[in-house]
Formats: sequence, structure tokens, C-alpha cells
Amino acid sequence: MNNTKVTKGLVIVNTGNGKGKSTSAFGILLRAWGRGLRVCVVQFIKAETGQWGEVKAARKLGIGWFTTGDGFTWTSKDMDETAARALAGWETAKEKIVSRKYAVIVLDEFTYALHFGWLETSQVIDWLKANKPEDLHLVITGRDAPQALIEYADLVTEMREIKHPFAMQGIQGQPGIEF
Amino acid sequence: MNNTKVTKGLVIVNTGNGKGKSTSAFGILLRAWGRGLRVCVVQFIKAETGQWGEVKAARKLGIGWFTTGDGFTWTSKDMDETAARALAGWETAKEKIVSRKYAVIVLDEFTYALHFGWLETSQVIDWLKANKPEDLHLVITGRDAPQALIEYADLVTEMREIKHPFAMQGIQGQPGIEF
Repeated sequence: MNNTKVTKGLVIVNTGNGKGKSTSAFGILLRAWGRGLRVCVVQFIKAETGQWGEVKAARKLGIGWFTTGDGFTWTSKDMDETAARALAGWETAKEKIVSRKYAVIVLDEFTYALHFGWLETSQVIDWLKANKPEDLHLVITGRDAPQALIEYADLVTEMREIKHPFAMQGIQGQPGIEF
Repeated sequence: MNNTKVTKGLVIVNTGNGKGKSTSAFGILLRAWGRGLRVCVVQFIKAETGQWGEVKAARKLGIGWFTTGDGFTWTSKDMDETAARALAGWETAKEKIVSRKYAVIVLDEFTYALHFGWLETSQVIDWLKANKPEDLHLVITGRDAPQALIEYADLVTEMREIKHPFAMQGIQGQPGIEF
């Protein structure tokens, strides 16, 4: 094993149809926070008014949490507004990325903005290649990560749903577990 | 959609060869902690002396963290001791499970104890069926989850490695990101 220390900020993508994409990103934040690193989240799709456990936890921990979404697309009444807010979220993300204030930044549900074409994937990747600080870790979550993003990323994990209780057994999402 | 609230503690399994199994479990803890729920971890395999970011975070947050492992098996010099410590870990886990002190318990890397036969999977499942409080959420992580455990669980996700930088590019694990 090569023990040469390479300081490189990883681009991490959590995609797939299963659970754990965002949750794993929050786990990374928790771990980094435990080591005293500065971290933040830019959340793209989920509603700002949501009272998710992770938002509460982030507030308690002093983790920056920036939201731009107006709810999941399938409940959105105005797709143009959804697209506009995705663009606004990307502006926020770019600002945080170049700020050099953070060791880890999570772009939560960011793949949807790419998948639905609200942002141009190639332009996003070109911008990241030119502007992401070398030592910044970037964690991007969401289904349907575009192939170009997968090629750009260092670490890609697919969360595959093997068994899901809500579809099969009619059990509701559990506060503190699912959201 | 059925809006009847079902209070049921989920058995959640994160398995597969990819990243995010334990990290997602820690994210669930963070989310539950954010909601003021009591949570703990019983860690089966990783070395007690490790200074992982998540242990530091748990200490800061007041999350119970019980370790029993003597390091990953492939670095263990004494497999019998590893097995004995897995058994001790299961005793700790059983005590926490029946204590009713916790809303969420993570059995981290627990599948290895089953996969390697240090614990009998059918006995473990029978014990859980008889003793796990109905409203307790249990999160079990590790590769090679036995089929019987998958059948018993409510929610199973496979973390699949799509792209991993350490194998391909020789980049070391990053403190605060990987451990």
C-alpha cells in the first residue's frame, strides 16, 4: 500500500433509487463536524418549510443549511419556479464552493436539477473543474446522476432498493428515521 | 395514500460492497438526535482505539457508543478473540435493545458476526423477534447480510460501488470523510 499522503478533495456522488443517499451525506457531515471541520449543506429540492430531523440537528450543531427548493417536483404547482429556484440554488452553491470557508459541502438532491435540465450538466462540471478548491470535498446526492457527473466524480455509490416497507406494507415514513 | 399512523420500529439493513452503509446509519442517528430522540451505537468490528470522526461526533453529541471489536478481521491476529468479542458485542446489543432507553440503535458492522458464523443468524433473528421492543428502530450495517436477515428486515438497501477512488487512483482515505 502506498502511504504517500495525497490531499485531494473528493467529489462524492450518492445516487440510485434506494434510501441512504442524503442520509449518508449527513453522516459524512457528522463525521467531519466531529473532527472540527467546517461543513455546510445546499439543499436543492426539499421544501424550505420542512422540519426534518437533519435540519434540526444542523441547527443544533451550527452547520450551515441553505435551502432553495419549493418541494419535490411532483408536488410543485409551478415548474418554472422550481427551475428558477434550482438556478438560485446553484448560485448559492457556487458562492459557498469558492468561499473557502468549508472543508465539506453537500449539494443535496442536486442531481434533479441536472436530470430535469434546469442546469446544463456540462456547464456545471466545467465550472467545478475550473473553480472547486482542490482540497474541498463535495458530496452530491439524488437519483439519476448524469453519466458525465459520474465520470467527473471520484467516488460514486448507487443506493439500490432491495426491500422497502412503505410500498410493501403500507407503513408511513417515521419521524426521525425517514425525514 | 393511507394516512393511518402506524408506530412500528423498523429493522433497517445497509449492506453491499459500496460506501455509505455505516455513514448512512450515522446520518439516521443525527436525524433522530435532531428530533431529540435517544440513540446509541454498538460497534462490532472496528478497533476500539480508532479515533474516527463519528466517535468524536458522538462524544460531542452525547450519543452512546459501545465498541467491542478488535479491529477488522483481516488485521486480527487472533480470530478466536475476534469471535469472542463479537459474542460480547451481541450481549451488549441485547442489553441495549431490551433497556427501552433508546429510540434508535445502530448495530454497526454486525453482519460480519453473522457472515463469519460467530453468531448463528437464525438464533439472532429469533431473539430479535421475541425481544425487540415494537417501537425500537434497529439499523444493522455491513457487507454480506445473510438472506435470512434480509427477509426479517423491513428496509434493505444495497450500497453498490460504482466508482471508488482508492482502488483506481491510489488516493488514501481522507480524515473526516472516510473514517
